[in-house]
Amino acid sequence: MVRKIKHTTKKHVNKYISGEEDIDVWGLKPISLKAKIFDIRSGSKIVILNTDTATSNDIYPSSRVLLRKGRNKIVATVDLSSDIVDPDEIGVFSEVKAALKLSDGNEINLFHLPRPASIRYIKDKMDNKQLSHEQIQTIVDDTMAGMLSDIELSAFMTSVYIRDLNDEETVSMTDAIVSSGDVLDLKKRVVLDKHCIGGVNGRVTMILVPIIAASGCYIPKTSSRSITSASGTADAMEVLANVDFNIEEFKRIVLKTHGAVVWGGGMNLAAVDDKYIRIRHPLNLDPHGMLLASILAKKKSVNATHVIIDIPFGRGAKIEDMSRAESLAHDFIRIGKQLNMKIEALITNGSDPIGNAFGPALETIDVLHVLEGNGSIDLKEKSCILAGRLLEMAGKAKTGQGYEIAEKIIDSGKALKKFKEIIDAQGGNPKITSDKIPVGEYTYEVLANKSGRVSHVDNRTFANIAKAAGAPRDKGAGVVLFCEHGDKVKKGEPLFRIHSESESKLDFAIKTLNVWKPIELEKVVITRIRGE
Amino acid sequence: MVRKIKHTTKKHVNKYISGEEDIDVWGLKPISLKAKIFDIRSGSKIVILNTDTATSNDIYPSSRVLLRKGRNKIVATVDLSSDIVDPDEIGVFSEVKAALKLSDGNEINLFHLPRPASIRYIKDKMDNKQLSHEQIQTIVDDTMAGMLSDIELSAFMTSVYIRDLNDEETVSMTDAIVSSGDVLDLKKRVVLDKHCIGGVNGRVTMILVPIIAASGCYIPKTSSRSITSASGTADAMEVLANVDFNIEEFKRIVLKTHGAVVWGGGMNLAAVDDKYIRIRHPLNLDPHGMLLASILAKKKSVNATHVIIDIPFGRGAKIEDMSRAESLAHDFIRIGKQLNMKIEALITNGSDPIGNAFGPALETIDVLHVLEGNGSIDLKEKSCILAGRLLEMAGKAKTGQGYEIAEKIIDSGKALKKFKEIIDAQGGNPKITSDKIPVGEYTYEVLANKSGRVSHVDNRTFANIAKAAGAPRDKGAGVVLFCEHGDKVKKGEPLFRIHSESESKLDFAIKTLNVWKPIELEKVVITRIRGE
Repeated sequence: MVRKIKHTTKKHVNKYISGEEDIDVWGLKPISLKAKIFDIRSGSKIVILNTDTATSNDIYPSSRVLLRKGRNKIVATVDLSSDIVDPDEIGVFSEVKAALKLSDGNEINLFHLPRPASIRYIKDKMDNKQLSHEQIQTIVDDTMAGMLSDIELSAFMTSVYIRDLNDEETVSMTDAIVSSGDVLDLKKRVVLDKHCIGGVNGRVTMILVPIIAASGCYIPKTSSRSITSASGTADAMEVLANVDFNIEEFKRIVLKTHGAVVWGGGMNLAAVDDKYIRIRHPLNLDPHGMLLASILAKKKSVNATHVIIDIPFGRGAKIEDMSRAESLAHDFIRIGKQLNMKIEALITNGSDPIGNAFGPALETIDVLHVLEGNGSIDLKEKSCILAGRLLEMAGKAKTGQGYEIAEKIIDSGKALKKFKEIIDAQGGNPKITSDKIPVGEYTYEVLANKSGRVSHVDNRTFANIAKAAGAPRDKGAGVVLFCEHGDKVKKGEPLFRIHSESESKLDFAIKTLNVWKPIELEKVVITRIRGE
Repeated sequence: MVRKIKHTTKKHVNKYISGEEDIDVWGLKPISLKAKIFDIRSGSKIVILNTDTATSNDIYPSSRVLLRKGRNKIVATVDLSSDIVDPDEIGVFSEVKAALKLSDGNEINLFHLPRPASIRYIKDKMDNKQLSHEQIQTIVDDTMAGMLSDIELSAFMTSVYIRDLNDEETVSMTDAIVSSGDVLDLKKRVVLDKHCIGGVNGRVTMILVPIIAASGCYIPKTSSRSITSASGTADAMEVLANVDFNIEEFKRIVLKTHGAVVWGGGMNLAAVDDKYIRIRHPLNLDPHGMLLASILAKKKSVNATHVIIDIPFGRGAKIEDMSRAESLAHDFIRIGKQLNMKIEALITNGSDPIGNAFGPALETIDVLHVLEGNGSIDLKEKSCILAGRLLEMAGKAKTGQGYEIAEKIIDSGKALKKFKEIIDAQGGNPKITSDKIPVGEYTYEVLANKSGRVSHVDNRTFANIAKAAGAPRDKGAGVVLFCEHGDKVKKGEPLFRIHSESESKLDFAIKTLNVWKPIELEKVVITRIRGE
């Protein structure tokens, strides 16, 4: 007697793969095919069926199939071809060949898997039905198990973008994302963390972490590499130390030094997030609920208890609208509460650059200048504000005194000392100083072509120029600013300098200045009206 | 001076590919890579980049790139790998190798194309903005040019499903779909057509077309192969004649015989439709506006002037809800008007099978029985109703007299004669009779296990049993019914017979009866209430 299953989930497949349950009880009809091996790696478990074979078995591109040869079984995704393979053949690449221990011409049994249950839930989301905790967990599980195609994942992200997640769903999504990866458990009562909503420069993290760690609190900070900026925090930290650790190494470092700045992508925290970001990126899709869940899951994955969220807003920042910044802040706080995290949000000026540099090495120098006692005032100030509030939240400072305490930790040299401990623990050179960091030797200075007051310094454009010069791949590439918003400059004075590690990249960066105007000088005459 | 373009469309790329415009004016930075050739066909223009190379150039999987070697250029899609190719290499398959005339190690220039403008419009649709005629045309053009990935196409279909298309957008979409493919222009003042909203059997088309053609009107009918049914109209017609023609052949046949029944997929009508159906299928996604546009575009592509739409509704049919059927009917009529097509819709009983057969050969026999004068009464009736209304719409019959005229065309043998002309014109044997059509020789009769009245005959389940027996690929496989809704049957009387062309497929079809109950006998006792 066949038990016809209508939907498969990761659980079904796992039971089958692990041998707990045989596929025959599912009432599926096996298709017998001869393996045709292509000895190259395709990067994923894809098999190629002849279009006719597929059509006559209701198999479409991206269908999921179970493959069995003897005792070996795997799940794979189908691609179609009318000429690479004959109707009785199945094309397999190296990954599938290895998993099933195949030789050319071996017989394989193929079972067409029913649609994953997740697809029904994705459809429910489209139809504006609230998803339960379990349904969201199933979607995330199926995503991790590779049971959902790009088409289905994109439909999910688009639906979540249009319908959004309510608070309950956002909490469920956060939990599901956490469960998809590893978790760092320091077994401490208080663990601090900080997050900045992307898109602007400013290496606050590399100053804030040593302040907090020097105060005795734990701050296991994971950072990203550049996505659209000239340098992610991880790219900048990498100028000084390793940033790529597994979770055990990360734990050892934090337990030793109280703080660390490592690359989040090197660990398996909130693993499903990358799979969703891959889908969201081509569409520039930032579903509100996913943004919240994704950030909160990263904090929850390191068991953070107190978190400060930096929301830069203004022209050129990710969030250009004050009311959106405010409502986002409230969302974080409210949902954080349901996840047992105490959250505070600070809405900060995101339209002007913080610090004077773009590019990994140049930004690292900026950071060291502050810790060494002679750096950018705005960068120091912002770091102390954020660190100060975290110290107050954790009870390490009375309300209103956090800033002062943070500043004292810098001024006393304790933050620099702690930073060097961290660099040491992360395998870098603890004797490093700001003047020892190599920067791109090919340089070009841009001078003011008239006198005037600086009315706008465009973060994004500078990031693009730094990238054209080779950042973040070339650590020494980037831009150093000589002026900031409000400064008066005279014709012929230097406005900024481009650094590059190669002449051709410098040339390319210079070329971009034909179209990109990163600095605006105030116009006296806004517009001229003429009589007829 | 570079002209920085923010978005690419098919027009940009065509200008470049055709040599009208050079890429250098776009302000894009070339990346120089060495070709590493994999001598297999991948079925599409994909290149493989090293993950590092891609990341440092902001290139993501599914990014579009222009490749140039000497004077040869193509557009390709990117896949990533961290081990198949080195950072300075680009992996290419046979298609790209041929297009660029490559040898191993050749240098290729790669340009990362800006996002197609379509992506912005897709985002607009998500945000519930109405799309203009031109924007919809651009999306369809970019889809045809392969500039949109599965992720982007799925986002589009999902948005259209959730936000729907308004009338203006539906008209634009219909026009854009028509423009994506070839068009049949018979240059006749009146061209009739008929469409049935999928999901139920009944070979009305093969009876209606010869009636209309015999009346002197033109009816260039394109039909589909099976998607979920046991046999599409094209599958059944193929038992008697060829159905795979190009548009010129189709035109010659219709001009000669006034009617034809061919496979729509063999021509290039409404070409973009298949690309959207590929995306909609895994999600079972039937956006209302797309359904309308897709059907109307097929009619418009053959320049139909008068169209009848058959909307079967009821249990087991695609539309199970009367008010949905009605509103769909009104939508067709209203939007048809804006497209200069006179449309009438008939809502028909879709819960019971029309005719007695499932599977290509068995359904064809059903059709011939009707035309030969001794067939299924309901199949004949439905065909005459639809054909009659078309004759009335075209002015070939007074209102109220269409049915009679249609019936007379059958009863007089004119329809059979015309059908044989059509079979002849489509390269089949015009001497065919219903008793000469081969059916599957492995058979199994299912008997009533009790006496009772037939309360339900499940269309879908019978289609599935026929498919399990090998239909539609095995033309002779299928099911013949011996009873219909309302019949009284005695225990032991045959209910239906399964035909198959192989013993193993027959066995499999029989096995499915363990789980599938295609016929329900009325229960006398519905439920029993007992006192406590």
